[in-house]
Amino acid sequence: MIFGRGVARVTRSLWWRRRRQLQSRPGCCESGRLLCFDVDGNSYLPARAVLGFREFSSWGLLSQLIVARRIHHQSSSLMEDHLDPFSLVADELSIIGNRLRAMVIAEVPKLASAAEYFFKLGVEGKRFRPTVLLLMASALNVPEASHRSLGDTLSTELRTRQQSVAEITEMIHVASLLHDDVLDDAQTRRGIGSLNFIMGNKLAVLAGDFLLSRACVALAALKNTEVVSLIATVVEHLVTGETMQMTTSSDQRYSLEYYMQKTFYKTASLISNSCKSVALLAGQTTEVASLAYDYGKNLGLAFQVIDDVLDFTGTSASLGKGSLSDIRHGIITAPILFAMEEYPQLRKVVDRGFEDPANVELALEYLGKSRGLQKAKELAKKHADLAAEAIDSLPESNDEDVIRSRRALIDLTRIVITRTK
Amino acid sequence: MIFGRGVARVTRSLWWRRRRQLQSRPGCCESGRLLCFDVDGNSYLPARAVLGFREFSSWGLLSQLIVARRIHHQSSSLMEDHLDPFSLVADELSIIGNRLRAMVIAEVPKLASAAEYFFKLGVEGKRFRPTVLLLMASALNVPEASHRSLGDTLSTELRTRQQSVAEITEMIHVASLLHDDVLDDAQTRRGIGSLNFIMGNKLAVLAGDFLLSRACVALAALKNTEVVSLIATVVEHLVTGETMQMTTSSDQRYSLEYYMQKTFYKTASLISNSCKSVALLAGQTTEVASLAYDYGKNLGLAFQVIDDVLDFTGTSASLGKGSLSDIRHGIITAPILFAMEEYPQLRKVVDRGFEDPANVELALEYLGKSRGLQKAKELAKKHADLAAEAIDSLPESNDEDVIRSRRALIDLTRIVITRTK
Repeated sequence: MIFGRGVARVTRSLWWRRRRQLQSRPGCCESGRLLCFDVDGNSYLPARAVLGFREFSSWGLLSQLIVARRIHHQSSSLMEDHLDPFSLVADELSIIGNRLRAMVIAEVPKLASAAEYFFKLGVEGKRFRPTVLLLMASALNVPEASHRSLGDTLSTELRTRQQSVAEITEMIHVASLLHDDVLDDAQTRRGIGSLNFIMGNKLAVLAGDFLLSRACVALAALKNTEVVSLIATVVEHLVTGETMQMTTSSDQRYSLEYYMQKTFYKTASLISNSCKSVALLAGQTTEVASLAYDYGKNLGLAFQVIDDVLDFTGTSASLGKGSLSDIRHGIITAPILFAMEEYPQLRKVVDRGFEDPANVELALEYLGKSRGLQKAKELAKKHADLAAEAIDSLPESNDEDVIRSRRALIDLTRIVITRTK
Repeated sequence: MIFGRGVARVTRSLWWRRRRQLQSRPGCCESGRLLCFDVDGNSYLPARAVLGFREFSSWGLLSQLIVARRIHHQSSSLMEDHLDPFSLVADELSIIGNRLRAMVIAEVPKLASAAEYFFKLGVEGKRFRPTVLLLMASALNVPEASHRSLGDTLSTELRTRQQSVAEITEMIHVASLLHDDVLDDAQTRRGIGSLNFIMGNKLAVLAGDFLLSRACVALAALKNTEVVSLIATVVEHLVTGETMQMTTSSDQRYSLEYYMQKTFYKTASLISNSCKSVALLAGQTTEVASLAYDYGKNLGLAFQVIDDVLDFTGTSASLGKGSLSDIRHGIITAPILFAMEEYPQLRKVVDRGFEDPANVELALEYLGKSRGLQKAKELAKKHADLAAEAIDSLPESNDEDVIRSRRALIDLTRIVITRTK
C-alpha cells in the first residue's frame, strides 16, 4: 500500500510546529521525574520533554478553540483550525447510538429501561470509544481502493464492518459498566442512579449479559478469526483487571507496575484491541495494526490515570472535590501511589483501610502536600504522547480525510488529559 | 462418507426389539393426549405410541441394569448389556473436569473458592452436557479416517477440538447458573449454599463473567466461524430465555408454546447447538449436523420438563415434596399449565401470585387432582423419543465404538426422563 507523502508532510509539519509553540509557552512545562510503565511493568526512561497539559483546561476551553464543521460539506484548508474529533464522526455516532438503542428496546422489551440508562451515560461513557474507532477507521483508509472497480462497494462494506467493531466495543464497555455496578454496589454512576440500584441486581446482570451476548453474535458475524480472538481476549482482560483490583496483597496494591497492568486490563485492552481490529479488517500490515494498537493502549492508559486523578479533584481541580469513590472502596490509584513514594508513612494509613472517614481525610492530607496528583498527570501525559507518536508513525497519506482523522486522533490525546470531567 | 451397514443393522435391530419388548409390558404404557411443541410453537400430532417411562425409576435401578466397563479394555458382544453412558467417557470427563478446575484455580486465585463450587454441583449439573458431547463425538466418528496416512494425528486433533466444545459448553452452563443465582437471589443450589449467598453477588457475577470470557477465548481458538456463530447465539438465547421468564403478560405466562420456547432458549439451545458444533468440526454433512442438533434440542427439552416436574415432586415422586422453587418465584411450568387446561379456575389462583403460602397450597391441590404432572411427563417422553429417533436416523456404521456411543446416547434419553433428582 502506498501513501502519497507531499501534502501530508506539509500539513503535519505545520501541525507539529503548532504543538511546539504551545509547548514552549512559559508555565506550560513541568519538570521533575516522569515515570512511565509498559503493561509488562517495565518502566521507561524519563520523557525527553514534558509537555504542558494545561493548554486545554476543560471541554469548555477546548470548544472555544474548535470550529466544528461537518467535514463532508466543506473543503477549506485543513491547516487553519482544530476540528472537534467528535463532530467529525457525529453522523455515524448517531447511527450507531440509534442502532444500539433500537436493538435493545425492540428485541428485549424488558430491558427498555436499561437501554435508556445506556444512553444517559456521560459523554465519554457514551461516545468516546466509538469516536476513536471511527476516526481510526478513517485514519487508516486507503483511498486508492475507492477508485478501483467495485471499490466503492468494498469501501462501504469495510466501513460497515468497522462500524460493527465500534458497536461491539461500546456493547462490551457498557456491559462491563453494568456488571461493575453490581460488583461495587454502586449507587450512582455519573450523577444518575445506577441501574442495579434503581432496578435491582437482576436487571443489571441480565442487561450486561444481553449486551455481551449481542457483542459475541456481532463479533461472530464478522467472520474474522483474528478479530474474534482479539476481542474475546478483551472480555477476559476485563475480568482479570477486576479480580486484580480485588487483591489484598499489599505488595501488589502498592506497586505502580501492578496498578498499570490492572489499568491496561480494565480500560486500555478494550480500546487497543478494537483499534487493532479496525486495522486488521482494513487489511493493513502487521506494523500498522501494531501502531493502531499502541495508540489505543496509550490513550486508554492516559484516560484512566486522569480518571483516577479526577476521582480526587472532580471538576474543580481541587483536591477532595471528586467523588473519592476509589479510596472509599479501598482502591489505591496512581496519585496515592506517587504520594506514598514521597511519604512512606502514608502506607500505614492506607493499611488501616478507609471505612473511617477520618482516615480518608488523613490520606488526602498526605496527598495534598505530596506531588502525587502532579506525577499522576505527568504519567497520563507521557502515555498521551506515546499515543500521538503512534499516529505520527503511520505511513504518510495525502488524503484529506485521512489527515483530518489522524489530526483528530492526536487532538483526542490532548482532550483526554485536559478534561475535567 | 460411507458407513458399513451389516453389523450395525443387526445390532440396532436387536436394540429396537428390546425397546419394543419393554414398551409392550403391561402397565408401562400411558394413554391420553400427548402434546408436543416445536421451538417454533407448532404442536405435533399425538405420538404414535406412548412409551412407558417407569422402566428405570431411578439412577439406582438403572445402575443395576448397567454393567459398567471400560470399553477400551473389553471386546465382548455389544448386544448383551446396557452400558452406563457416563462411564463410557469417564476418563475424558475427568480430564475435562480437572482442566476446568485447574484453569480457574491457577489463573484467577481469587476465584478458587468459586472453582470448588463449580465442581460440587450435582451429577447432572457437572457432567451431563460434556457426557452428551463426547458421546456425540464418538457417535459421529468416521473410523475409516484413522486408517489413512496421518489419520491418527488428525483424529486426535479433532477429538481435542471436540473436547474443547464440551469444555466451552460446561463453562457457559456454569456461568449461566452463577448469574441465574444472582438473578434469583437463590440461597441454595442443589443443596449447597449458592455462591452468591456465600460470597456475595460480586464473586458470583465475576466468576460467571470469567467463565464466559474463557469460553469466548476457547471458542475463538477453534477458528471455525460457523461454530463461533452457533455458540455466540446460545449465549444470546440464554439471556432471551431469562427475560422471557420475567414476563408479566398473562397470555404469555399461560401459554404452553411460550413455555416451550423459553425452555428451548434457557436449556435446549446450548446442548443442541454444541451437538451441532461437534458434528461440524468432524466435517459431517448438513443433514448429520441437523440430526445432532435435533438430538440435543429434544434431549434438552425433555431434561428441563422433567426438571420442572421434579420441582413439584422431588425425589419421592409425591406432589409437594420438591423444592417448589419455581412456583414460589411465580414461574409457571408445564405441570401447572396442563392442570390449568383441566381446571380453568386455577388461572385465578395463579393470577393472585404465590407470596401467600396458602395460595401455593391451593395451586398444589388443583395440580394434585389434575393430570398435570402426568401430561408433563408425557411431553418430556415425547421429546426423549424424538431425540432417540434422531440418533436412529444417522447413517449406519459398523464401528463398535460408534454403535456403543449411539446406544449410550439413546440410553441417555431414557435416563433423562426417568431420573428422580
